[in-house]
Amino acid sequence: MNRSPLAPKRFPDLPEISGIKLATAASGARYKGRDDLLLITLGPNSNVAGVFTKSDTAAAPVAWSQTIAKTGKAAAIITNAGNANAFTGNLGDKAVHDLVSSLAAVLKCDANAIMVASTGVIGEPLDVGVLAPYFSGLVDNQTANWHAAANAIMTTDTFAKGAHASCVIEGAEVTLCGIAKGSGMIAPNMATMLCYVATDAALSAPVLEQCLHDANDKSFNAITVDSDTSTNDSVFLMASGTAANRHITDPRDPALNDFITALELVMRDLAIQIVRDGEGATKLVTIDVTGANNKAAARQIGLAVGNSPLVKTAIAGEDANWGRIVMAIGKLGIGISANDISIDIGGYPVARDGMRVADYDETPIAAYMKNQIIDIKVTVGTSGGTARVWTCDLTHGYIAINADYRS
Amino acid sequence: MNRSPLAPKRFPDLPEISGIKLATAASGARYKGRDDLLLITLGPNSNVAGVFTKSDTAAAPVAWSQTIAKTGKAAAIITNAGNANAFTGNLGDKAVHDLVSSLAAVLKCDANAIMVASTGVIGEPLDVGVLAPYFSGLVDNQTANWHAAANAIMTTDTFAKGAHASCVIEGAEVTLCGIAKGSGMIAPNMATMLCYVATDAALSAPVLEQCLHDANDKSFNAITVDSDTSTNDSVFLMASGTAANRHITDPRDPALNDFITALELVMRDLAIQIVRDGEGATKLVTIDVTGANNKAAARQIGLAVGNSPLVKTAIAGEDANWGRIVMAIGKLGIGISANDISIDIGGYPVARDGMRVADYDETPIAAYMKNQIIDIKVTVGTSGGTARVWTCDLTHGYIAINADYRS
Repeated sequence: MNRSPLAPKRFPDLPEISGIKLATAASGARYKGRDDLLLITLGPNSNVAGVFTKSDTAAAPVAWSQTIAKTGKAAAIITNAGNANAFTGNLGDKAVHDLVSSLAAVLKCDANAIMVASTGVIGEPLDVGVLAPYFSGLVDNQTANWHAAANAIMTTDTFAKGAHASCVIEGAEVTLCGIAKGSGMIAPNMATMLCYVATDAALSAPVLEQCLHDANDKSFNAITVDSDTSTNDSVFLMASGTAANRHITDPRDPALNDFITALELVMRDLAIQIVRDGEGATKLVTIDVTGANNKAAARQIGLAVGNSPLVKTAIAGEDANWGRIVMAIGKLGIGISANDISIDIGGYPVARDGMRVADYDETPIAAYMKNQIIDIKVTVGTSGGTARVWTCDLTHGYIAINADYRS
Repeated sequence: MNRSPLAPKRFPDLPEISGIKLATAASGARYKGRDDLLLITLGPNSNVAGVFTKSDTAAAPVAWSQTIAKTGKAAAIITNAGNANAFTGNLGDKAVHDLVSSLAAVLKCDANAIMVASTGVIGEPLDVGVLAPYFSGLVDNQTANWHAAANAIMTTDTFAKGAHASCVIEGAEVTLCGIAKGSGMIAPNMATMLCYVATDAALSAPVLEQCLHDANDKSFNAITVDSDTSTNDSVFLMASGTAANRHITDPRDPALNDFITALELVMRDLAIQIVRDGEGATKLVTIDVTGANNKAAARQIGLAVGNSPLVKTAIAGEDANWGRIVMAIGKLGIGISANDISIDIGGYPVARDGMRVADYDETPIAAYMKNQIIDIKVTVGTSGGTARVWTCDLTHGYIAINADYRS
């Protein structure tokens, strides 16, 4: 697969996070000539949090990791790419059990302290026997960098995704590094969204949980490629506690302010990289919604526009077909008055108060639509609900990836 | 545009409905060399009912016709193709007013007895001055047949859609004829769904309303092409009362049973023709859901599968990628247990109770996927909720129609 035209020029330089170690290996289970296993180990003072797919058909490793995340403590996260271990019934649970037992024996830790993430094909039993022989090599050689880690978890991704930030907590510098994979939101067959963010900050599990929840809402929950949701989506936040900051235990502690901003930056950067790697994507689209009754309604409107196949194909065709935006807003049926709707594209006023602007001239907007980055602003009233949503266009490339090639 | 590969061989022979007259004309407002106006007039004993889009951005003619439909009485329905008169603010309401006033003057009837349906481009003011000069010609020459009527209302349709049935009400034969247009569910820019069903039966307006509501639920509400909803969708049912049956006024009258079945047949036939004309469609897909908690949940599951871009592209690619069906069911998050899910494709068992069947062999299913007609059966439990949903595949043709050609 060619690298997405929206890909960043190169993978960023990500620093090590003290207290967090990385290791990768190539099991050959599905892919040849590349790593497909990632081991992350966490130092003894680490805390963790996680958010997971809400799918009713969530994969076996999701249920397992969710339980561990609730305890706030984990010794390791093991990830395999190529098989999602989803819709595998009792065999799926048994595979998770075998996986963590084998790894725990090598790591000499409690099996209940090992989180698992899987991504790949749905419905095929996961053969742990093929993966386990690589575990001692992983444990013995935990010297991989973030770039290698990001490469090891890819499936249909056309580029590895990483981001970092640093900030100060009461005078102590802390660092955050994140990697992610996913190229749809989210093709279940090999394009699950996975994200791992590590920091050296000293933060309690409840602090991590709250920060992750809030940042996730402004990042991964605000992106869409094709409206489909994976069985395996998981986001992990881990804090090794090796930085010099005062250990913070209250999620409302004002000392967290800069950390919250930095975490949002990292996660939004990674989320937008996933949209930039959307299957077949040639344009990155930002939809700003204002004037909705509340934040949830604004998000709903933004996602309706961002998920509409007709809006997305119009953008692919570089067509300023704003009538399709009107349609997408209206189809929600949530009681918006057409006369309250105003639309801007690329800063150009298109519609005001339920009508095309009087002196509408498509020429500059048609020229704007040729850009790779497209901004759409939708106002639906005078209330305070706002939201920002990112999506990509819907192109022949999407059909080619999902229909032309057999799984 | 080439005729859809799923189109019927030819337009059916539809009989006249006594008491209902048809007329068509070519205004040239948007299309050249074809009719774009349809006038339907209803005899004095006629009753009517209508169901309309629930879009918050419903077009001006929808609001107008909805009000008249509630009275149960109408003298005429005028339809224009090429301009939806949607998102046109006060200008839209004024255009409807001018349209019905001009036509009422020629028809010598109350303007409040004329229903309006518009389909075409969104956001452009409708110029009634271009249409009105054709009204006297329409009124003077009401001799068009159903085929001409079906042709006059098309936009991006690749074939005209008609269906009919007859039945007996307490010994008296009655006839039903219907026409429809639409090739997406529904591209707002020129692919609104419109449907008109006429019968000579003597039925009260409340009877019509109930029968239309029920039949609509089993037909137009059960189809999807791209999950988008038009600003202009409208379905009209009119009964001229010229047949010999006893005038029926109670929607629960058992004498209606055969009429209800006949109406369902006609509307389902038309609805499936719309799916067969889905933009770029090459396959007609029927999704049967059983075992859901209730009918609404079953419908929701069927539509989630039928709207999933990943399921639809897999079908386009003739790929038996049933994992995407699992994903689509799960993403609803309505509390289905993965272990209760079973899937059959074309009669072949694929998954049972949350796992791929033990002796799964893709060979016969892969061969089955090459058919034009694809049947998918999904069981999600042991409760009684069932639903049937029709959709089509998502192909390069859809992208070509919606992205490659400028509006």
